[in-house]
Amino acid sequence: MLAKLQEEKVFKDPVHSAIYVQDITIWKLINTPEFQRLRRIRQLGTSYLTFHGAEHSRFSHSLGVYEITRKIISQFERNGYTDWPQEERLLSLCASLLHDVGHGPFSHSLEEVFHTHHEEWTCEIILGDTEINRVLAEVSSDFPGDVASVIRKTYHKPIVVSLVSSQMDADRMDYLLRDAYFTGVNYGTFDLDRILRVLRPYQGKIVVKESGMHAVEDYLMSRYQMYWQVYFHPVTRSSEIVLRQIFRRAGELKREGYAFAFMLPAIAHLLEGTLNLSHYLMLDESCVQTAFRQWELEEDALLSNLCSRFLNRQLYKYTPLEDKDEAWLADAREEWRSIGLNPDYHLEVDTPYDSPYDIYKPELLPGSRGKLPILLLDEREQLTEISVKSDIIRSIAGIHRGKYYIYYPDDEVRKHILRLSSETRNKLSI
Amino acid sequence: MLAKLQEEKVFKDPVHSAIYVQDITIWKLINTPEFQRLRRIRQLGTSYLTFHGAEHSRFSHSLGVYEITRKIISQFERNGYTDWPQEERLLSLCASLLHDVGHGPFSHSLEEVFHTHHEEWTCEIILGDTEINRVLAEVSSDFPGDVASVIRKTYHKPIVVSLVSSQMDADRMDYLLRDAYFTGVNYGTFDLDRILRVLRPYQGKIVVKESGMHAVEDYLMSRYQMYWQVYFHPVTRSSEIVLRQIFRRAGELKREGYAFAFMLPAIAHLLEGTLNLSHYLMLDESCVQTAFRQWELEEDALLSNLCSRFLNRQLYKYTPLEDKDEAWLADAREEWRSIGLNPDYHLEVDTPYDSPYDIYKPELLPGSRGKLPILLLDEREQLTEISVKSDIIRSIAGIHRGKYYIYYPDDEVRKHILRLSSETRNKLSI
Amino acid sequence: MLAKLQEEKVFKDPVHSAIYVQDITIWKLINTPEFQRLRRIRQLGTSYLTFHGAEHSRFSHSLGVYEITRKIISQFERNGYTDWPQEERLLSLCASLLHDVGHGPFSHSLEEVFHTHHEEWTCEIILGDTEINRVLAEVSSDFPGDVASVIRKTYHKPIVVSLVSSQMDADRMDYLLRDAYFTGVNYGTFDLDRILRVLRPYQGKIVVKESGMHAVEDYLMSRYQMYWQVYFHPVTRSSEIVLRQIFRRAGELKREGYAFAFMLPAIAHLLEGTLNLSHYLMLDESCVQTAFRQWELEEDALLSNLCSRFLNRQLYKYTPLEDKDEAWLADAREEWRSIGLNPDYHLEVDTPYDSPYDIYKPELLPGSRGKLPILLLDEREQLTEISVKSDIIRSIAGIHRGKYYIYYPDDEVRKHILRLSSETRNKLSI
Amino acid sequence: MLAKLQEEKVFKDPVHSAIYVQDITIWKLINTPEFQRLRRIRQLGTSYLTFHGAEHSRFSHSLGVYEITRKIISQFERNGYTDWPQEERLLSLCASLLHDVGHGPFSHSLEEVFHTHHEEWTCEIILGDTEINRVLAEVSSDFPGDVASVIRKTYHKPIVVSLVSSQMDADRMDYLLRDAYFTGVNYGTFDLDRILRVLRPYQGKIVVKESGMHAVEDYLMSRYQMYWQVYFHPVTRSSEIVLRQIFRRAGELKREGYAFAFMLPAIAHLLEGTLNLSHYLMLDESCVQTAFRQWELEEDALLSNLCSRFLNRQLYKYTPLEDKDEAWLADAREEWRSIGLNPDYHLEVDTPYDSPYDIYKPELLPGSRGKLPILLLDEREQLTEISVKSDIIRSIAGIHRGKYYIYYPDDEVRKHILRLSSETRNKLSI
Repeated sequence: MLAKLQEEKVFKDPVHSAIYVQDITIWKLINTPEFQRLRRIRQLGTSYLTFHGAEHSRFSHSLGVYEITRKIISQFERNGYTDWPQEERLLSLCASLLHDVGHGPFSHSLEEVFHTHHEEWTCEIILGDTEINRVLAEVSSDFPGDVASVIRKTYHKPIVVSLVSSQMDADRMDYLLRDAYFTGVNYGTFDLDRILRVLRPYQGKIVVKESGMHAVEDYLMSRYQMYWQVYFHPVTRSSEIVLRQIFRRAGELKREGYAFAFMLPAIAHLLEGTLNLSHYLMLDESCVQTAFRQWELEEDALLSNLCSRFLNRQLYKYTPLEDKDEAWLADAREEWRSIGLNPDYHLEVDTPYDSPYDIYKPELLPGSRGKLPILLLDEREQLTEISVKSDIIRSIAGIHRGKYYIYYPDDEVRKHILRLSSETRNKLSI
Repeated sequence: MLAKLQEEKVFKDPVHSAIYVQDITIWKLINTPEFQRLRRIRQLGTSYLTFHGAEHSRFSHSLGVYEITRKIISQFERNGYTDWPQEERLLSLCASLLHDVGHGPFSHSLEEVFHTHHEEWTCEIILGDTEINRVLAEVSSDFPGDVASVIRKTYHKPIVVSLVSSQMDADRMDYLLRDAYFTGVNYGTFDLDRILRVLRPYQGKIVVKESGMHAVEDYLMSRYQMYWQVYFHPVTRSSEIVLRQIFRRAGELKREGYAFAFMLPAIAHLLEGTLNLSHYLMLDESCVQTAFRQWELEEDALLSNLCSRFLNRQLYKYTPLEDKDEAWLADAREEWRSIGLNPDYHLEVDTPYDSPYDIYKPELLPGSRGKLPILLLDEREQLTEISVKSDIIRSIAGIHRGKYYIYYPDDEVRKHILRLSSETRNKLSI
Repeated sequence: MLAKLQEEKVFKDPVHSAIYVQDITIWKLINTPEFQRLRRIRQLGTSYLTFHGAEHSRFSHSLGVYEITRKIISQFERNGYTDWPQEERLLSLCASLLHDVGHGPFSHSLEEVFHTHHEEWTCEIILGDTEINRVLAEVSSDFPGDVASVIRKTYHKPIVVSLVSSQMDADRMDYLLRDAYFTGVNYGTFDLDRILRVLRPYQGKIVVKESGMHAVEDYLMSRYQMYWQVYFHPVTRSSEIVLRQIFRRAGELKREGYAFAFMLPAIAHLLEGTLNLSHYLMLDESCVQTAFRQWELEEDALLSNLCSRFLNRQLYKYTPLEDKDEAWLADAREEWRSIGLNPDYHLEVDTPYDSPYDIYKPELLPGSRGKLPILLLDEREQLTEISVKSDIIRSIAGIHRGKYYIYYPDDEVRKHILRLSSETRNKLSI
Repeated sequence: MLAKLQEEKVFKDPVHSAIYVQDITIWKLINTPEFQRLRRIRQLGTSYLTFHGAEHSRFSHSLGVYEITRKIISQFERNGYTDWPQEERLLSLCASLLHDVGHGPFSHSLEEVFHTHHEEWTCEIILGDTEINRVLAEVSSDFPGDVASVIRKTYHKPIVVSLVSSQMDADRMDYLLRDAYFTGVNYGTFDLDRILRVLRPYQGKIVVKESGMHAVEDYLMSRYQMYWQVYFHPVTRSSEIVLRQIFRRAGELKREGYAFAFMLPAIAHLLEGTLNLSHYLMLDESCVQTAFRQWELEEDALLSNLCSRFLNRQLYKYTPLEDKDEAWLADAREEWRSIGLNPDYHLEVDTPYDSPYDIYKPELLPGSRGKLPILLLDEREQLTEISVKSDIIRSIAGIHRGKYYIYYPDDEVRKHILRLSSETRNKLSI
């Protein structure tokens, strides 16, 4: 079923001005419970505690990724580029729209604690007993599998994978612009129209006309800035640490047989590691926040305190460390115990360096877990990886940065300031 | 305690670029649990179902109202206007920040069903046993009462009331700009800087320099446009109808002694009309959405269906009616029953005319429930109500508009289309 | 010759982001000397003396009008509307691009003094011995005549005229947005994308889908605001008065046989009323400003003083008059003479009411000199003139406003303040 | 005379929203003929031929530089920073406003041909027999000299020089934002508010709080992008080449005693190298364009052709060269001659590398001709040059780039394509 809607549907969007839906399949997908659930999951997890405007959802972002993909394909069709397989339009649009549908509440933090992976849930939702699966299967019996294979980067036409997943794909382009818009941080803007204009399908890949090199440089700089200004902001890291500790503590209590005054079945399964698809789809940030609000009233003082900290933004303080001084850290853990704190919960060392951050990694090849590199197409139809030609990209591609931060409950620690060693006071600058 | 922060705190804000906090009292108020709770209450209630960007919270808006008030007062202080009582700065800032702190989840809908009023809750929070009260009382024992009296418009210096509550106050200025920004509807923008520049304190009122008349016209036109484009959008009205029906149905079931598989204490008190302040502060949109998600699984088919409709955006269809044809409506209710629908839940007539809408009502006087009119100050220091001088404001002030819409579950009704009378099919254009 | 360019040309544009040229004819027209001359003529005449950003040229605006027309036609073609005659695309684009090509330097002021009309010059340029004519004639021998007839509103297919010239045509849409952008006045913005989306070709006219009514309201309000904030700004009116006086004085001197130390042939013909097309094309704002700069050095004190005033922005002061008190004005002219001023040059009464201003005049019919009214197309394919349905447009359509201002050289008048009558001092508030 | 205006004057500005004038001296300076003359000189010289929006003047830019300086000083005063000498406010504002007042028409090109320097003219205007000098001298007899010494970077308080002239001064900040706005190139935007917030006066310098490092990175990247996208755009380079050739040819003709049909005295002095201040102030872009328009009619075919090319944007074509192959260039010059072209005028090699371009040069020290480096102030009050701490700035600071381009009249050369050597055709890709 490739039918078009009788009349185009238009969503007003603050980032792209409007989002146009022309296909019945897309319209139906948007209206499934599994897709509407994304309205209850924030795009930037806990970042709203740092940037109060960052309250936008994965629903908005998913529509945005779809819209950018739609624009790219329209441009290819309008210009009649023969390297673009026109029959893959609907597949590409569906994969773009659905690529994030498996995200759970506060995904990055929860995935770390519970070792789940949103991409796998995405494929389960596409292939499992869901409305989304039924809508996709109306197109053809193979169609759900094709969508999943695009998301898994194994689809047999690499150009479709290249469109949906690369170092400069619709996902990244939408989230940089959208996160910049909602946080109010204007480092993240770049000239989307210009980038769309210089993309070309070419021999199984999406490449960039060489004249667009500076626009790509600008896009990569936006990415760099957004990482350091927004995504790795230490206040956000602090809120993620508290969030993970809540889940660790709740899991511990669950395993110990603690009788929770409030517990939702889906959360119980999450804590026990027995989630199935139907439980997973019950999870969203509303139920997590409701649980935290109720757990503030639990008898377990540690759980209650952590939940209050998270809900009322009484986060851990952060102090940069010159280096990860393991000897001192061991001592500090002892000191923490001596003043009645629990170092497993009240002392964390963190570096964004551990995170999968790269401005741009040209060395990554298709087939690896990484994203396809950005290739420039010159007037003689030669392809060159962009960092060969761009001084600025070559300069920044190699930048690695890892600043250590220590996180701890400042209010608690300061109460015992006289009992802290001078070394510790020095490290914490207190 | 009027102390200043050692270093100004800055919140990045997408609408005002930055929000500056200089007073310890303001900083402490922002960090109370009661104020942080506003993060879990959307500024525009169900509008996110129409405009997916409208996911911003009352937390952001409250900071914005504070910031506009701060800017106005700074301008007054910088220019040394003697009609502004400088000692009222902190009171004005606190009242601005806190004016919406009593809002509950989906306020407008819930207030209609449960006959509560957010302004009363605001005063209870300010005066009751809360962190906010404790922070305010640190300023002076009278201070909480003064803040409440500004919000109730009874404070003894009318200029403070005029600043916080008038036809062009910081509240309206922030929400028009903010709602326009997040929905992406650019009708709502006006030149805030220019308006701030032409405000003057004058004989116990905040007035507008005559040269700013066109800027005020533009502000009022934005207001007009935002009402018809956003606030009264029929899809939003439809979602509010479904929301109210969920609560009506849950209340009915509660009274009937139905055994809910899921019930939170605060929601139980809400349904029973036995809310106290401590219950009220447990309410937020997370717990409401969590309840709805769980109630989808309840045995009561009507409650379950309404919750699904709300969560999955399967709202009621709307059809405009030429007039409110009472005779036909009585017949239609019968028809609804005959096809197995419940007209109390499946047929609603609505008109935004019932809503407290006015672009601008100059006839309202201080002391009435209304907001103070906009006064122009000319070069001869004469005050004139703006609609006397502005053709455009005079023209639009009198516009009343009420379009009737009928709302109903289109999917259910269409199943029985052959059993509907031709008149009904005609009215519904089906 | 309807050939397309091998590769689309793109002009970066701050208002529309980019302007796309696909046709060889359009590309060639842009590169003619007659069109490039528009770079030396400001879009807003003397407004840059009030709004320093308003330095943009008619060249930019003409490209913008072309681009909006191109977007409208693309939308019509993409949707396959059968009421749009696809064969008229190039004609419409050429007429849009060239509609202002006959503008001279400071058009409005000069046309008043010398009784020329830019529309006639536009047709002369299109039909005369010019590069533009040669490029158009390459399309077909009838083509220049067709373009001229569209501009004269006599082309035999009224839909083309409707596209290029109506109450909401590409010309008005571009200049409101562009003038708002360059002056920095943000009253003039409206949602162009939304308006383009609701335009429809229908039975020989361009009409508006009813759902776009609020967008049109917003457009008309922008127009209203721009007129009163920018186009009729009294400082701009003052500069236009000084400009007209310079030309009146220079014409007088020329007729008296005064020996100008500096005179350009084209300006001499302008002053003498003997301009032909080739002289006219020599005129631009560079040569006018050069003449003024040189005339500052002329012996005639009046001419020299007026030129200094214009170049150095020492304009006439303006004072609003309650009414046009003819008796006092006659007295004032005497007073002016008695203090050595020349009332023909040093006293002007002006009202924007004399200007061809209308927010919107629905009564105007095709065939009259006016522009076509805005028609709404409803779901039953009925057309209704917009002010019938829109309260706001009905309210503002009737607004007439004429505030009198008196303009005079304040510095000169104040020197003799003691010799002025009390009535005059009162009128002038000095 | 340090008096304040009775009422603040406000200029509407599209970049800064508004420009505020509070001092009588500033108001008077703006209204001098020498400052108003900047309205007739474009900020970006010939760039309007590449970016049609770039029609803004040095008048607008000078107001913008003043406004940024005013904002910086206000922030210093508001925070009571003791390292800022408050008595230097007016001096700093005057130097900012006037720093570009000596620019002539198409400055960069003319300075290259005639070996003048705008900074020297600025000082002559400030110190010579001008209105500006008279206004400044009203402050005190030393004041004009002080303003000139700030501009010459020799003023005895280095912090004032640091404010007006450094690697991140008000001049650069305004022009990047303004040029980005008017060209429509959005690479040039950065977060001005944030940068202003992190500037601090410290021990005789303006430094940056360390937390603002990323904002500075963003500013330097904007600078990098604007250089390559706008300032060094090859079409702009081409127009500058044609412009310089016009002046070279006119100078040649003048020296040869050619009888110009049109010549303005100031231009004659320019060509002869006998300009004095009074002539210089007669020069502006209006008179240059008027001269070119008249010179199109001159008998000298070369001059006439070059003027036509410039006015009608029939510029030289550019082709990138792999390297500056001197041997081939010598041959090409011969070829040019053999086909009747003049290699002195019809063949130019150019590289932006010759231009004084640096993203950022930390090695430059005060006292050298360069601008002061950017210093970060950390929490321990240590100063560190920014490239030590910023990976990205260190990476880009070393980028040198020089792409050779050859410029020539393509239309003329192609006429003789068969007579060109294959090497030449290859180099030119024709």
